[in-house]
Amino acid sequence: MITRPIRPDDREGWEPLWRGYLEFYRAALRPEVTEQTWAALCDPNSAVHGIVAERDGHLMGLAHLILHPTTWATSPTCYLEDLYVDRQWRGRNIARRLIEAVYAFADESEAASVYWHTQEYNAPARSLYDTLARRTSFVVYQR
Amino acid sequence: MITRPIRPDDREGWEPLWRGYLEFYRAALRPEVTEQTWAALCDPNSAVHGIVAERDGHLMGLAHLILHPTTWATSPTCYLEDLYVDRQWRGRNIARRLIEAVYAFADESEAASVYWHTQEYNAPARSLYDTLARRTSFVVYQR
Amino acid sequence: MITRPIRPDDREGWEPLWRGYLEFYRAALRPEVTEQTWAALCDPNSAVHGIVAERDGHLMGLAHLILHPTTWATSPTCYLEDLYVDRQWRGRNIARRLIEAVYAFADESEAASVYWHTQEYNAPARSLYDTLARRTSFVVYQR
Amino acid sequence: MITRPIRPDDREGWEPLWRGYLEFYRAALRPEVTEQTWAALCDPNSAVHGIVAERDGHLMGLAHLILHPTTWATSPTCYLEDLYVDRQWRGRNIARRLIEAVYAFADESEAASVYWHTQEYNAPARSLYDTLARRTSFVVYQR
Repeated sequence: MITRPIRPDDREGWEPLWRGYLEFYRAALRPEVTEQTWAALCDPNSAVHGIVAERDGHLMGLAHLILHPTTWATSPTCYLEDLYVDRQWRGRNIARRLIEAVYAFADESEAASVYWHTQEYNAPARSLYDTLARRTSFVVYQR
Repeated sequence: MITRPIRPDDREGWEPLWRGYLEFYRAALRPEVTEQTWAALCDPNSAVHGIVAERDGHLMGLAHLILHPTTWATSPTCYLEDLYVDRQWRGRNIARRLIEAVYAFADESEAASVYWHTQEYNAPARSLYDTLARRTSFVVYQR
Repeated sequence: MITRPIRPDDREGWEPLWRGYLEFYRAALRPEVTEQTWAALCDPNSAVHGIVAERDGHLMGLAHLILHPTTWATSPTCYLEDLYVDRQWRGRNIARRLIEAVYAFADESEAASVYWHTQEYNAPARSLYDTLARRTSFVVYQR
Repeated sequence: MITRPIRPDDREGWEPLWRGYLEFYRAALRPEVTEQTWAALCDPNSAVHGIVAERDGHLMGLAHLILHPTTWATSPTCYLEDLYVDRQWRGRNIARRLIEAVYAFADESEAASVYWHTQEYNAPARSLYDTLARRTSFVVYQR
C-alpha cells in the first residue's frame, strides 16, 4: 500500500470514497459541489490538496487538506478537512498512513501546524489521533 | 460604537489589542509574525481580513478572519481565527457586534459558513457564542 | 469464573492479555518494559499489584494497580492503571468483577480511595464505570 | 523569586498555602493527615516530594508530587498531586515556575512522564497548563 497525491485519473476510485465519507456524516451535497471539489483537488494552483492510499491500483482511503494563511505564523497552516478509509479496509493502519502523509506534505509546504476536527464521541478515530497529535482544549462553533 | 474593516492607519490602535489577545493565550510571537499578519490584514488581495470596533477614534476590539476554500461547498468558508475585546470595554456587547460584522462580511463574500475554535472552559465566551452560533460536537486535534 | 491475585506461573496466560490491552491503546512498549512490569507484578514487595479473572485455568482479564501515598490521607491511594478483558469474553461482567476485586484489595490495603483514567469517548467502559464509581470533574494533563 | 525543595523549617510558611489549597477544593482534612503529609514531605526517603516558590523568605506557592512506579515504563512516573499559589501572588507566573521545577525534578528522577488532574472547568489553571502540557483525552473516575 502506498500513499500519494491525488491525480486526475483517480476520479473513478475517488468518488466512492467521497460518497462513503459523506454518508458517514449523513451529508448530501449538490453534484456541483463534488464537481468543484474534484476540480480543486486536481488543480495544482489550488489551496485544496488530496492524498490517497492505493494498493494494486485500488483506492482505499483519502485525505483532503487546505493550506491557508494564519495570523499566528509567517507560514501557512494545514487544515485536514476530510479523512476517510473505506470500511472494508479498516484495521490496516491506513488512516495512520494517510495522516503521516499529510504531515509529510505539511512539512514540505513548511506549514506551521496541522489541525483537524473530529466528533468528540468518535472513539475509533480519536483513539488513533491520540497517538499522532494533541487533543487541544478547543471546541468548534459554527454558523 | 461602530464596527468596520481594519485600515492601514489602525496600526497604533490595533497593536495593543493584538498584544492583549496574545497575552490571554499566554503566547509570545516573534515580531516578524506580527509584521506579516499586519501586512496581510492591510492587503486587500490577502485571504486574511480584519474588523475592528471603534468609538471616537479608539479601537476597542478586533476580529481576524481567513477566507479559505472548503471541499463541502462551492463557496469559501470563513474561519474566525482571532476575536478580542479590550478588558476595559467588556460587558458592552462589543464581541457580539464584532461577530455580527464577521457574519455580514461572510455574507458579502458568499461564504458557505463561519467557524471558530474556543477553549471548552471559556465560560464567558461560550455563553455569548451559544446565542450566536451552534456549538458543534467537534473537538480540535493539532500537530 | 474467579478473580484472584496474579501468580508467577500466570505469565503465559497474562502476556496475550497485556498485548491485547496495549494494542487497544495502539501502544508499543520495549520488551524490557514488559519484563520489568511482569517482575513487579510478581514481587510481593512492589507497589505494583495484579489481579486476573480466570476460568478453568484460562485467564480472561487483568487489572494492574499501584498503591502509592497521597497527601490527602494517612493511608495510600490505589491507582488502577490497567484494566482489560479479552475480546472474546466481553459481555460477561468480567470487568465489573475485576473492579470489585480491586476494591476488595484496596479495602484490605486500607487504601483511602481508588482512581483511574479512561478516554472520555470510551462509551462501553464508561457506562460500566458509572455504575461502580464517581466520574469526577477532573481531566488529565500530561507531559 | 526562586523555586526549591521544601525544607523542615518551611512548616510555618507552608501551612497557610496548604490550607488555602484545601479551601479552594472545599476540603477539610483531619489534623493528622496534615501532620503525616508534612512528615512525608520532609522525609527524603518518602515518595512524596515538595517544591515551594519563595521570595525574601516568604513562601508564595507549593507543588507536591508523588513518584510511583508505572506498568508502562521501566522508570517511575511523577504525579503532581497538589499545586497552589497564594491568591495575593497570582499573575506572576509562579504556577508556571513551579511546574517547570516539577519537570526539572522529574527529569533528575528520570521519571517517564508527569501527570496531573484538574477540574475541566478551571479556566485559569487550564489556560496555563495548555501552554505546558498535553490535555489528554482522559477523564478521572474515583471510588
